[in-house]
Amino acid sequence: MSSDAYDAILTCRAVRHFTETPISDDDLQRILQAGRWAGSAKNVQPWHFVVVRNRARLNQLAECGRYASHLRGAALAVVLVTSPGRWVDFDAGRAAQNMMVAAWLLGIGSCIASLHDEDRARGLLGVPGDLQTHIAISFGYPLEDAPQTIEDLPREQVLAHIGRQPLERLVHWEAW
Amino acid sequence: MSSDAYDAILTCRAVRHFTETPISDDDLQRILQAGRWAGSAKNVQPWHFVVVRNRARLNQLAECGRYASHLRGAALAVVLVTSPGRWVDFDAGRAAQNMMVAAWLLGIGSCIASLHDEDRARGLLGVPGDLQTHIAISFGYPLEDAPQTIEDLPREQVLAHIGRQPLERLVHWEAW
Repeated sequence: MSSDAYDAILTCRAVRHFTETPISDDDLQRILQAGRWAGSAKNVQPWHFVVVRNRARLNQLAECGRYASHLRGAALAVVLVTSPGRWVDFDAGRAAQNMMVAAWLLGIGSCIASLHDEDRARGLLGVPGDLQTHIAISFGYPLEDAPQTIEDLPREQVLAHIGRQPLERLVHWEAW
Repeated sequence: MSSDAYDAILTCRAVRHFTETPISDDDLQRILQAGRWAGSAKNVQPWHFVVVRNRARLNQLAECGRYASHLRGAALAVVLVTSPGRWVDFDAGRAAQNMMVAAWLLGIGSCIASLHDEDRARGLLGVPGDLQTHIAISFGYPLEDAPQTIEDLPREQVLAHIGRQPLERLVHWEAW
């Protein structure tokens, strides 16, 4: 097993401050393909990806969520447009995680933005009213004073930047 | 960027038929750590992981979902126990995807089981009534006649086994 692949999964973390370096079309394709190949219930793939690079639109999108200001400085955003359904958010999370880890492998950071004002986001992007638009993902190269890619920092240093509950508190054996 | 890491993301697919080979404690730890390090809204980590290896309990768990029979033959299952909340299923999907890709890197296949009879699953595992138990993941080594790990098969062959919509149908530029 490739340890750098596993490290990418362990070290991928939210990045909210980005440089002005654009993301190449090739790298964007890699990110989108990673989302596309995520599994979903009955393989219905209940998602569309709206790519937003236009700065004015990114700024407007940032107004649609209470903690979404990181969208302003992103090189681009991918808005997840989904069909409503019991299992859809779960599957959307799988697609998002694939995109975020694939980006991280390229040295590109990302952060989820919850779009609390979903109607506004829908209107901004021209999305039909029967579809959901409550999740966007910022992508961009991390600013230098933030932890960079897994190649740039010792693994321990990256891991220390974000806390997680210890496994002993999360894991239960056989039953609760 | 490591191409095998990226390939693991692209090629990870649902495996429903498993050998009887158990999953080592070390590998299980790696899988659980991958879930633990997933991001979540406000870093609340709204999940617990219940590991089920007992065969009788796996069989009972398989009765809790309409398409959950793959749990019977799994080496183990991880049941996601989550707090209710608007963004929790999305975050649970992120944790699940991390675990599934980390397992895939180890040659271990996995499949999501929706537990439609959540009350029954809750009772089976002794989970408090205010928590959710509607998602389980089967893990095990794939049976030989199914596509194996990314090391064993040409990439094209693995990709051909599961269809996905082409990107042109999924991706929208700037707006819907």
